[in-house]
Amino acid sequence: MRTSQYLLATQKETPADAEVISHQLMLRAGLIRKLAAGLYTWLPTGLRVLNKVANIVREEMNKAGAIEVLMPVVQPADLWQETGRWEEYGPELLRIKDRHQRDFVLGPTHEEVITALVRNEISSYKQLPLNLYQIQTKFRDEVRPRFGIMRGREFTMKDAYSFHLTQDSLQATYDAMYNAYCKIFERMQLDYRPVMADTGSIGGSVSHEFHMLAESGEDAIAFSNSSDYAANVELAETLPVATASVDALQYVLVQAESEEGEADPDKWVLLVLSAAHSLNDIKAEKLAGVAAPLITASEEIVTKVLGVAPKDIDLASVEVPVYADYVVAAALSAESFADKLTAVDIRNIEAGDPSPCGTGTIEIKRGIEVGHIFQLGDKYSQAMNCGVLSESGKHETLTMGCYGIGVSRVVAAAIEQNHDEHGIIWPDPIAPFTVALIPMNMHKSQRIKDAAEALYAELTEAGVEVLFDDRKERPGVMFKDMELIGIPHSIVIGERNLDEQLVEYKNRRTGEKSLLQLSEVAAFIGAL
Amino acid sequence: MRTSQYLLATQKETPADAEVISHQLMLRAGLIRKLAAGLYTWLPTGLRVLNKVANIVREEMNKAGAIEVLMPVVQPADLWQETGRWEEYGPELLRIKDRHQRDFVLGPTHEEVITALVRNEISSYKQLPLNLYQIQTKFRDEVRPRFGIMRGREFTMKDAYSFHLTQDSLQATYDAMYNAYCKIFERMQLDYRPVMADTGSIGGSVSHEFHMLAESGEDAIAFSNSSDYAANVELAETLPVATASVDALQYVLVQAESEEGEADPDKWVLLVLSAAHSLNDIKAEKLAGVAAPLITASEEIVTKVLGVAPKDIDLASVEVPVYADYVVAAALSAESFADKLTAVDIRNIEAGDPSPCGTGTIEIKRGIEVGHIFQLGDKYSQAMNCGVLSESGKHETLTMGCYGIGVSRVVAAAIEQNHDEHGIIWPDPIAPFTVALIPMNMHKSQRIKDAAEALYAELTEAGVEVLFDDRKERPGVMFKDMELIGIPHSIVIGERNLDEQLVEYKNRRTGEKSLLQLSEVAAFIGAL
Repeated sequence: MRTSQYLLATQKETPADAEVISHQLMLRAGLIRKLAAGLYTWLPTGLRVLNKVANIVREEMNKAGAIEVLMPVVQPADLWQETGRWEEYGPELLRIKDRHQRDFVLGPTHEEVITALVRNEISSYKQLPLNLYQIQTKFRDEVRPRFGIMRGREFTMKDAYSFHLTQDSLQATYDAMYNAYCKIFERMQLDYRPVMADTGSIGGSVSHEFHMLAESGEDAIAFSNSSDYAANVELAETLPVATASVDALQYVLVQAESEEGEADPDKWVLLVLSAAHSLNDIKAEKLAGVAAPLITASEEIVTKVLGVAPKDIDLASVEVPVYADYVVAAALSAESFADKLTAVDIRNIEAGDPSPCGTGTIEIKRGIEVGHIFQLGDKYSQAMNCGVLSESGKHETLTMGCYGIGVSRVVAAAIEQNHDEHGIIWPDPIAPFTVALIPMNMHKSQRIKDAAEALYAELTEAGVEVLFDDRKERPGVMFKDMELIGIPHSIVIGERNLDEQLVEYKNRRTGEKSLLQLSEVAAFIGAL
Repeated sequence: MRTSQYLLATQKETPADAEVISHQLMLRAGLIRKLAAGLYTWLPTGLRVLNKVANIVREEMNKAGAIEVLMPVVQPADLWQETGRWEEYGPELLRIKDRHQRDFVLGPTHEEVITALVRNEISSYKQLPLNLYQIQTKFRDEVRPRFGIMRGREFTMKDAYSFHLTQDSLQATYDAMYNAYCKIFERMQLDYRPVMADTGSIGGSVSHEFHMLAESGEDAIAFSNSSDYAANVELAETLPVATASVDALQYVLVQAESEEGEADPDKWVLLVLSAAHSLNDIKAEKLAGVAAPLITASEEIVTKVLGVAPKDIDLASVEVPVYADYVVAAALSAESFADKLTAVDIRNIEAGDPSPCGTGTIEIKRGIEVGHIFQLGDKYSQAMNCGVLSESGKHETLTMGCYGIGVSRVVAAAIEQNHDEHGIIWPDPIAPFTVALIPMNMHKSQRIKDAAEALYAELTEAGVEVLFDDRKERPGVMFKDMELIGIPHSIVIGERNLDEQLVEYKNRRTGEKSLLQLSEVAAFIGAL
């Protein structure tokens, strides 16, 4: 590609409203442009990267036995009513009406559509397991879109859905997807971690997130310093061992759950943990007798329920059920009221805690979630009556898995992980171009022009993706643009070196420079 | 691909609500499934075809110098307000509100979005011409979606938009797109015709449609039987020569246009043509002094305006302006009132008319419109103030072209053109698979199984796309499915032929069968 016939769209200024580095660099390097809040046009350079990411995902999904389909963006409301998500899903679900005033949604996810498809198409256990995926445009009406395409409203997603008769079959496909995800991110040469995760509102039991490690990540991930253990801090268990002395306690009074599974406004449960720790809401919500989502009492209610102000709480005289964090329980175990509290895991794990896997000590790093795999169980298949005849002729409800990758988000996460003060540094497999060809003052020197044109033709012929900067620009402008865009390899053709049939090679990541014989360039690039 | 690990989804019954053959066959061959009116999921076999069509389009657009981008499906209303189309566009434009009650549309086309992009990105004539395209999901809220994906609501489109300083530059890109479209449909081996077309509501002057010839086509196309002339009947001119005697006349009274260009309820214009011909509304709307869109008077109004019932009209005493079709004018020229009428072209061309190009006689065929290219002029760039500094430093408004291909529609049109009573007959370049490998009773014969597995491995290794029917099905079921899906080439492995190391080759289109040495199959297929 010649820059003179391309839409380079690089910008010198850092856009004022771009908070994170990937957003800034995607705008400055001409990868995206904002159309409206959370809506972006992919410019040519950005789309080249997006398509490379999508193709790696597609190849590995196909190798892992998944089959590609394409479902509509616009989905009829009745399917969402079948699963109850028409009411349950928040305002991120954009509900729309067509010209006949019929209800539809812009799909943020496709569990309902795929389950409806499979319930109609699959009738026998012989057709199972089945793993269908698509790479497609999704819409989620974020209340506050930000960070560019990292948290946009319209985005590209790979979503796969698998259907099984047995848990063993689901586990086998889940494992295959786990491995495919590892291969995908390895092929992209990105620093990623699979971590154990909470299944959240999607439902199901087993779940892993795939995170790109980056300081700007929204999620905190707990790692063992001497094993493979990694989990989202939301989920990471703390062990029932006293790891620290307890200097001061903190009390959190939360609403109890009625027998019907709803919040009981008359009953309360007291949670106790060390003042040095932080409460993990997700863990607390899972405690028996505690209402989910967590409802925390105001100071006024605490005083009314316990008869004393929060600061004066004395465990010995508390009459509501008490859950104490393991650390607190261990520290209090010698005291006389220890038998009235239940020791549980309700705090966030912290750096320095022993790893829940039993080996090593915990470290905390930041991560950007780019993939998530779930064992859904029968949440959707049950609600939508999706089953088959088993080998024994009995109708059996299917069990499902689902497997997502935020394809457009990977592009931003890759930049968060790969950049310096001059711009983006693409790993070769997802770079928009492999080589930047920079002739110095070509428009004044026929010799430079001839050499550049010949090398461009040779590299292109060899299948190398070259961005040939044939603009009438000063060399400094070209260097800056190519560094900003982050093309991994540059070849600079200048007068002096050309006297000896030499060109300069520069590696964007290492900064390493070397002189190459003009005749050797193609072989050198080919060998990378 | 093995059928046992694939979603074949073929159906025996012809779906009752599918009116056209492509819709029936797309359902029966397992290419698509209906989700809701006008909304279809692409099943694996259909998506393979769709992706092949899209890739051929992409390759030829790139070769012709167009640059790929990707714009959002959801577009802010303010851009459509700038061009006036927020009000003008009919209910096919689905207007939606986000969670903050801001107005958006689901994009049926992207003139506004691309013009807004170019107005921000391009500032100098040096960056022109520029031709940007995308292959993307579009939405048009058809009042009555039908014919499957042929007239669906959500569909895949390739839309390109070019920007120029001069008409010469626009014409050069228009010609390049015309040629690229010819290459695209030639590569797909489809029977297409570029035809001159009306520019309709998109605006602009020059326009060509690309039609797939098929009896089921919605459009009538006029061809010369001895030149390259082809035009949509909507547009095809009739020549001012008397081609037939006029036995009876028909009169159409239409509302006049005021000086402000609006309908004038007090004034009328009379159109006269042979009773044997049909009025062409588009031509009539373009006549000086006639209101557009055409408003035709009821019998009551005719009587009131002309003083006589329609059947009693006498041209000699008519006092409103009269336009007579050329044929009528020629027939009446000897009469005394001939000077009070203006001879014009207002009828539809018909088979047997002389070709407007001056060579040959007109034939009429049916076509399915799959592509449309337009010279837009400055309709959008003027309304949205999209210009650059010219070489002389003056701000100049750009002139634009736009170029569409209905990518998903091509799939249906290809089937309308390529099928028989057994199913689809794909041209090789867009076939979902190139070869169907059909082993007879493989599950009872290890020898057949071994030969089939070895051939499957050999062909796949050679890069041939093979659908290997490894189901436990009777040969008749396999043959029927593969014919229905329309795979161009079949290899059948049976016991008797295998005794002599032979297999049977069958060509889906010609029906031709031949015996091949097992060892020669890969070379034979490779040579196709």
